[in-house]
Amino acid sequence: MQDKKMVEQITSMEEDFAQWYTDIVKKADLIDYTSVKGCMVFKPAGYAIWELIQKEMDRRFKAASVENVYLPMFIPESLLEKEKDHVEGFAPEVAWVTHGGLQPLQERICVRPTSETLFCDFYKNEVHSYRDLPKVYNQWCSVVRWEKETRPFLRSREFLWQEGHTIHATFEEAEERTIQMLNLYADFCEEVLAIPVIKGRKTDKEKFAGAESTYTIEALMHDGKALQSGTSHNFGDGFARAFDIQFTDKDNKLKYPFQTSWGASTRLIGAIIMAHGDDRGLVLPPAVAPHQVVIVPVRQQQEGVLDKAFAIRDALARRDIRVRVDDTDKSPGWKFAEAEMRGIPVRVEIGPKDIEAGKAVIVRRDTGEKSECAIDELPDTIEKLFDVIRKDMYDRARARRDSQTYTAAGKEEFNRIFSEKSGFVKAMWCGDVECENKIKDELAVTSRCIPFEQEKIADTCVCCGRPAKKLVYWGRAY
Amino acid sequence: MQDKKMVEQITSMEEDFAQWYTDIVKKADLIDYTSVKGCMVFKPAGYAIWELIQKEMDRRFKAASVENVYLPMFIPESLLEKEKDHVEGFAPEVAWVTHGGLQPLQERICVRPTSETLFCDFYKNEVHSYRDLPKVYNQWCSVVRWEKETRPFLRSREFLWQEGHTIHATFEEAEERTIQMLNLYADFCEEVLAIPVIKGRKTDKEKFAGAESTYTIEALMHDGKALQSGTSHNFGDGFARAFDIQFTDKDNKLKYPFQTSWGASTRLIGAIIMAHGDDRGLVLPPAVAPHQVVIVPVRQQQEGVLDKAFAIRDALARRDIRVRVDDTDKSPGWKFAEAEMRGIPVRVEIGPKDIEAGKAVIVRRDTGEKSECAIDELPDTIEKLFDVIRKDMYDRARARRDSQTYTAAGKEEFNRIFSEKSGFVKAMWCGDVECENKIKDELAVTSRCIPFEQEKIADTCVCCGRPAKKLVYWGRAY
Repeated sequence: MQDKKMVEQITSMEEDFAQWYTDIVKKADLIDYTSVKGCMVFKPAGYAIWELIQKEMDRRFKAASVENVYLPMFIPESLLEKEKDHVEGFAPEVAWVTHGGLQPLQERICVRPTSETLFCDFYKNEVHSYRDLPKVYNQWCSVVRWEKETRPFLRSREFLWQEGHTIHATFEEAEERTIQMLNLYADFCEEVLAIPVIKGRKTDKEKFAGAESTYTIEALMHDGKALQSGTSHNFGDGFARAFDIQFTDKDNKLKYPFQTSWGASTRLIGAIIMAHGDDRGLVLPPAVAPHQVVIVPVRQQQEGVLDKAFAIRDALARRDIRVRVDDTDKSPGWKFAEAEMRGIPVRVEIGPKDIEAGKAVIVRRDTGEKSECAIDELPDTIEKLFDVIRKDMYDRARARRDSQTYTAAGKEEFNRIFSEKSGFVKAMWCGDVECENKIKDELAVTSRCIPFEQEKIADTCVCCGRPAKKLVYWGRAY
Repeated sequence: MQDKKMVEQITSMEEDFAQWYTDIVKKADLIDYTSVKGCMVFKPAGYAIWELIQKEMDRRFKAASVENVYLPMFIPESLLEKEKDHVEGFAPEVAWVTHGGLQPLQERICVRPTSETLFCDFYKNEVHSYRDLPKVYNQWCSVVRWEKETRPFLRSREFLWQEGHTIHATFEEAEERTIQMLNLYADFCEEVLAIPVIKGRKTDKEKFAGAESTYTIEALMHDGKALQSGTSHNFGDGFARAFDIQFTDKDNKLKYPFQTSWGASTRLIGAIIMAHGDDRGLVLPPAVAPHQVVIVPVRQQQEGVLDKAFAIRDALARRDIRVRVDDTDKSPGWKFAEAEMRGIPVRVEIGPKDIEAGKAVIVRRDTGEKSECAIDELPDTIEKLFDVIRKDMYDRARARRDSQTYTAAGKEEFNRIFSEKSGFVKAMWCGDVECENKIKDELAVTSRCIPFEQEKIADTCVCCGRPAKKLVYWGRAY
């Protein structure tokens, strides 16, 4: 009875996907709500996933010559206003500080929603000559956007992210960095999180406020909705002109430099939940699982069982596997359900009979598959199993995405697909924002991206029938 | 000529200590000022020191069963006001957010100056039974205090820190954790930063707003001024009562739990500068030096020199030594001065003659001492040298502190010492805040701590002549 309680409390995915998501977030102990509306507590299990994401992403950044910095969290209003498109995009959703202690401020300041304007202010001191370029900076921080509707990890008033900001002597170098970082995000999602992504460019309607071009990676969740999982922007010299940043080039001429920015956030945790989770709870890719293995002793009160469990733990820990023994006084069945809810990739069961036979039982979280393994071989076997799990998780997510990706040559087909289901629909587009607006109004569907891998599905725009320019991925999005 | 320029621009410590400090902060590229008054940019060299501090401190936290979490950066006014002493201490220096986007907020919220109230709000959901205790949490974040006078690392409106927050079933357990974390800070300062500290308790006048007792580690800077380098607070059940947090204990009775908090911040970077720096610039302890070794090739245009420099770099990097080759087109002398300014613990010089002899020159930043070393032995030698450097840096800082620590039995002696110099003065105290106030008014000197290691210097209070209760360390402080 008790064993199933934890599981029974989860709504099934089929029944109510949104409720299933909320249930996992709560039952897997990732998040707590607070009395600060729209802001969340990252509990230890949730924050530890973020720490592992940070660690691996930061390692990749450093290998790509990125230097970490930290800029202030406040932006004076006059600074935010310098780039016209940027302020229009962000001013409606920033939090304004008007008082410092008991005194009203002379100029109000906002909590950063993103830091382009602060970096420009910084570059002005830093960049004078071609010798000062490029600068390839990043910061890990929190930002604030005053959202009306919020959901854990996906949309909250404060969220954690990294924002990279770079400045270059030429447009080409900036463009190269923009694509390099997009590729880094895509590789990270696929190799670390086991989530397949579509790489492409945003349409002008969907691009970042102030950007010349925005590139994106788009993932597809279990319910067929898209999740933008990382973006990379090329600003051209727009910000440099707005902030009057100039440098003396090799030819001794004063020029405007070119900038980029790129960001990924705690949304990635939402992506993990919705790309891999099932009706028993969270399913974590081994690379970002705070505990990769849980050892559940069976008949733990019998002599030697706990000792053996701890010996196995120590052998795994020596391989830098993150492992714990669940030696609480709960029943094994309860412990199994709890470990499944928390998404721990591998469970090891060990009881008196197993010990006698020199074996243990290994259970995979992603498939439920059980196998026996000699106790001595556990470290090798589990290490290899992590790779298999990652690959299988990726393959399943990929197969599911492919099965939810459709093509539509004409409007009728397009409308029919979106009236019946969600997913990616590949369809041609004329390039006109009017068609995007119409599709959004009629179907609540947006252009997700113009994929780098172009195909020709039809000659004409799926909306207006005029000649098509590009293949676009369309979808409903988080 | 050019070689010395960088050094000549630093004010000497003797001449103007405050200007020397500011010069180092700028010339070692740690900090930049911004158009946001009282807020700083952490440049790559400054932020990398903080990352190394974080990494090692976090490793020690995790070994002490601390779990990382992340709570919102905002506190609603009604929440801040719940604990009376706490709000009195912090309300005058918080930044108030009054608008979200275009709308005024129904209740204004402040940017966290510290997060006790948020953690209490969180505990209320988390803590119901003795089984839920203890909780041992920490978060790495930035906080805001609207200071009037600011100085890089030492006092700024926004600063980076960690704040630990714990909750326990008994007062004794809370007290034990308070002292455990103070000891962790002290060990960290001494073992990692090579800075000796005095451990003790703050007087009631100097304790944290809302705390029952505050413990501190106090370090002495080069100019004889004290720097509070980490604090740990026992709140008793004061916050639990104010926030009505209760749990059912083993005896089935409802009880108030006991709380602690403890913090260390980017001030520690200021401590490193002022405890170890000299007139040639920063001197970094090897454990937190972003680059631990710089290799300076001499006659680098000669064939084979750069190749050998890179080979040495690779051999050191294989030992996880953080190393770079300075292969810029600056002169060797300029490179030496620059590496000294940035505090890089070890410099390796390698030229054609050295290569022929199979040797390189090693120069210590802390002492300037030069020695020769066979190229093959560089990794072993340098690894061992780091330990020697750390120990020597500690010993020198300790000897300097001891030479600047005085004892005063009576008021006259006490006044004379502080009129002539700065430093720690050990003197007896009656326990009355009036004496503290008087000493502060007359000499701008505060009680730094009541040290754990008590001595009896006199029978009477250094200020009023009444019977003494405790030995106190007094000093001028940052």
